[in-house]
Amino acid sequence: MAFSEFRPLNESSLIEYIKTVPSLSDKLGNKFDDIKIKEVGDGNLNFVYIVVASSGSFVIKQALPYVRCIGESWPMTKERAYFEAVTLRKHGHLCPNHVPDVYHFDRTMSLIGMRYLEPPHIILRKGLIAGIEYPLLADHVSEYMAKTLFGTSILYNSTTVHKVSVAEFCGNVELCRLTEQVVFSDPYKVSEYNRWTSPYLDRDAEAVREDNDLKVEIAELKAKFIERTQALIHGDLHTGSIMVTQESTQVIDPEFAFYGPMGFDIGAFLGNLILAFFSQDGHAVEGNDRKLYKEWILRTIEETWNLFRKKFVGLWELHKDGPGEAYLPAIYNNPELQQLVQNKYLTDLFHDSLGFGAAKMIRRIVGVAHVEDFESINDPSKRAGRERRALELAKLLLKKRRSFNSISQVISAIRELQ
Amino acid sequence: MAFSEFRPLNESSLIEYIKTVPSLSDKLGNKFDDIKIKEVGDGNLNFVYIVVASSGSFVIKQALPYVRCIGESWPMTKERAYFEAVTLRKHGHLCPNHVPDVYHFDRTMSLIGMRYLEPPHIILRKGLIAGIEYPLLADHVSEYMAKTLFGTSILYNSTTVHKVSVAEFCGNVELCRLTEQVVFSDPYKVSEYNRWTSPYLDRDAEAVREDNDLKVEIAELKAKFIERTQALIHGDLHTGSIMVTQESTQVIDPEFAFYGPMGFDIGAFLGNLILAFFSQDGHAVEGNDRKLYKEWILRTIEETWNLFRKKFVGLWELHKDGPGEAYLPAIYNNPELQQLVQNKYLTDLFHDSLGFGAAKMIRRIVGVAHVEDFESINDPSKRAGRERRALELAKLLLKKRRSFNSISQVISAIRELQ
Ligand SMILES: Nc1ncnc2c1ncn2[C@@H]1O[C@H](COP(=O)(O)OP(=O)(O)O)[C@@H](O)[C@H]1O
Ligand SMILES: Nc1ncnc2c1ncn2[C@@H]1O[C@H](COP(=O)(O)OP(=O)(O)O)[C@@H](O)[C@H]1O
Ligand SMILES: [Mg+2]
Ligand SMILES: [Mg+2]
Ligand SMILES: [Mg+2]
Ligand SMILES: [Mg+2]
Ligand SMILES: [Mg+2]
Repeated sequence: MAFSEFRPLNESSLIEYIKTVPSLSDKLGNKFDDIKIKEVGDGNLNFVYIVVASSGSFVIKQALPYVRCIGESWPMTKERAYFEAVTLRKHGHLCPNHVPDVYHFDRTMSLIGMRYLEPPHIILRKGLIAGIEYPLLADHVSEYMAKTLFGTSILYNSTTVHKVSVAEFCGNVELCRLTEQVVFSDPYKVSEYNRWTSPYLDRDAEAVREDNDLKVEIAELKAKFIERTQALIHGDLHTGSIMVTQESTQVIDPEFAFYGPMGFDIGAFLGNLILAFFSQDGHAVEGNDRKLYKEWILRTIEETWNLFRKKFVGLWELHKDGPGEAYLPAIYNNPELQQLVQNKYLTDLFHDSLGFGAAKMIRRIVGVAHVEDFESINDPSKRAGRERRALELAKLLLKKRRSFNSISQVISAIRELQ
Repeated sequence: MAFSEFRPLNESSLIEYIKTVPSLSDKLGNKFDDIKIKEVGDGNLNFVYIVVASSGSFVIKQALPYVRCIGESWPMTKERAYFEAVTLRKHGHLCPNHVPDVYHFDRTMSLIGMRYLEPPHIILRKGLIAGIEYPLLADHVSEYMAKTLFGTSILYNSTTVHKVSVAEFCGNVELCRLTEQVVFSDPYKVSEYNRWTSPYLDRDAEAVREDNDLKVEIAELKAKFIERTQALIHGDLHTGSIMVTQESTQVIDPEFAFYGPMGFDIGAFLGNLILAFFSQDGHAVEGNDRKLYKEWILRTIEETWNLFRKKFVGLWELHKDGPGEAYLPAIYNNPELQQLVQNKYLTDLFHDSLGFGAAKMIRRIVGVAHVEDFESINDPSKRAGRERRALELAKLLLKKRRSFNSISQVISAIRELQ
């Protein structure tokens, strides 16, 4: 039996598919009698099947040529699965501890077979809503970001290697355009897709659409998103793209990957932690006011950036005599200068991250796709109150990001506005 | 007869070649008896043949797989001819008045057939050395830059169109790497390729290699050169890539073209005019002190930027409701905001242009390839004096470019240092 043409699978045809693919059937010891398959896709775009048998397990993710949560009326290239697979492998190579292994990829079927992140792995966003602390989270995510971003930049690679890969990922433009629309455009104009907690935030949404200063800043970030091929970024690194346990942190779902600005990934993660922070009061109950948990989130934000910075600079030092083209050792040949350029690089990246993080926050409050952190607050007036403060912080960060010199100043701003 | 494989031509095999190509032989009315062929390549890289017969003429440019002025010991992909041909056509489509028509392109042979820019067309650099004024130069070059840069940016094109072309031009990486080396690296380190007017400038060259602030700035520009896909730039827009008469201005030789920062082209042109300015005292003779000519160069620098700005903004206004992705009319929906974003865009571009222009000046004084403007000053001490002042200005521009608010401030700085 052959799958020589694309076809959407379901729980039963997937078994037939698995039988035709040695790398998958081997994982199950070629025993199919007790196989259990369950579709669990809770994301917006794709179908995800958990496949478990007595002798093994994996996950199958298939892209269909449209956006799942909307339907066939919103077409979306299924080639995104190709870019997701290439990125999982590339990032997995650079950071195996925090990226699931890819067992199989089938371009015709837009289908990825990968490690099943077994329970107690859950989506980080759900853990944050439940108020669970992850003591290793900052350490792990900063490691993932430092290794993948450094390792796909011209700090590490020759221009030749860099441009071959840039060219390939230009092909993922449809996904980039979706981001351009929902992050950098729609929230700043009247759009049928936008929504917010109405009527409470009607004036706030309108204020975003009428804020010239904000629009000047978002234009700069949009151009950077489209034009700056700084590294192979994940492209969708929110807290719903990370699965966690107390010991393990795994980054999934890089279908939006392309060569873009590093700050877009860092900002996505930090911005979504800030959203989680602002949502906490909405989850407070008798006996659990979430105060300590909010402190943990703030510590995690602070540590993530500080650890990222340290690890990134560490990689830079480690590889400074390698093929990376950006800072030739014969030019950057004294410690003082080395420190100057590193400080400048990391300061610029910090400001980028704050800007992109803020943009990601804004779009989750007045744009098309919202976050469960807020959506799960049932009382709309309470929800709107929390969203409004997050929105105010985001606007401040977007407009004044260059005046923040350290992450601790950002934490102070969060505390003041909370 | 077929040329199914690459082979370097010479004056006599070129005739045979022309006979096999209808678009070329038609240009000559298919009469070959009075054909005259002359190799005139004075550039560094390629072979250029002027082909003239009684009934027509053209120019043939062929790339060989090495750097002409060095020889086979410095290999260089002959595919550069492909990128040159594609760019001549693209830029020619956007700005037909200032780009020669391409009659024929043969990828196998790395060969372009184009309009012969007949006398009195000469290379602009030679005109500048001879002290000839070109009253339309600023108007023409600003038009070329505005139309080609705007028309290949996301101000004019959709992201989809943009990324297809970005991907293709990633293929011209060998030429990009040459620029990276000779503009952004070699002048700032000890390199066998560097030279300068020795011993006069020994200390000046050393000072460049020991200037931490300069090295911080050049790193930023190098990253921008590699990472920022802002527009399809010419990539080598110095005064040796422009042919002129009193009425006509034609841009040739875009073999270094790729998607890079617009400021690299603008800076190349302005920086080379500044070099021409500083060289003038070295060309002064009894009865011609070049004083008036220097004023004309300064006016041309000032007008080029001011006209560029005006034309670029004009194109922006004209096409603001087109498919360009950067500033959607539904967001940038009031005149005050439109002016804000335009000012910001043009200010950033101005600073980029000054930085890249300065980098191009520096490399012409202490790097591998020098300019005839200075080289033709026979007295080395006089030459060194002129070069030193140009170098000082360039260092100032590179380090302090963000403090210049208008081109007239640049002109003042040139006057002060002259
Ligand atoms: N490797 C995996 N192991 C376990 N569960 C997974 C795995 N990959 C995805 N999932 C589950 O499927 C959901 C959707 O996966 P995701 O890759 O985010 O798809 P989408 O692109 O549609 O957002 C995740 O939220 C997670 O619950
Ligand atoms: N279309 C043309 N018409 C007339 N002369 C030309 C033309 N193209 C090139 N030339 C002459 O040939 C020289 C080298 O051409 P160029 O394209 O600059 O080659 P290179 O890439 O080797 O620098 C120019 O300086 C000019 O004198
Ligand atoms: Mg997902
Ligand atoms: Mg792994
Ligand atoms: Mg996804
Ligand atoms: Mg030339
Ligand atoms: Mg050339």
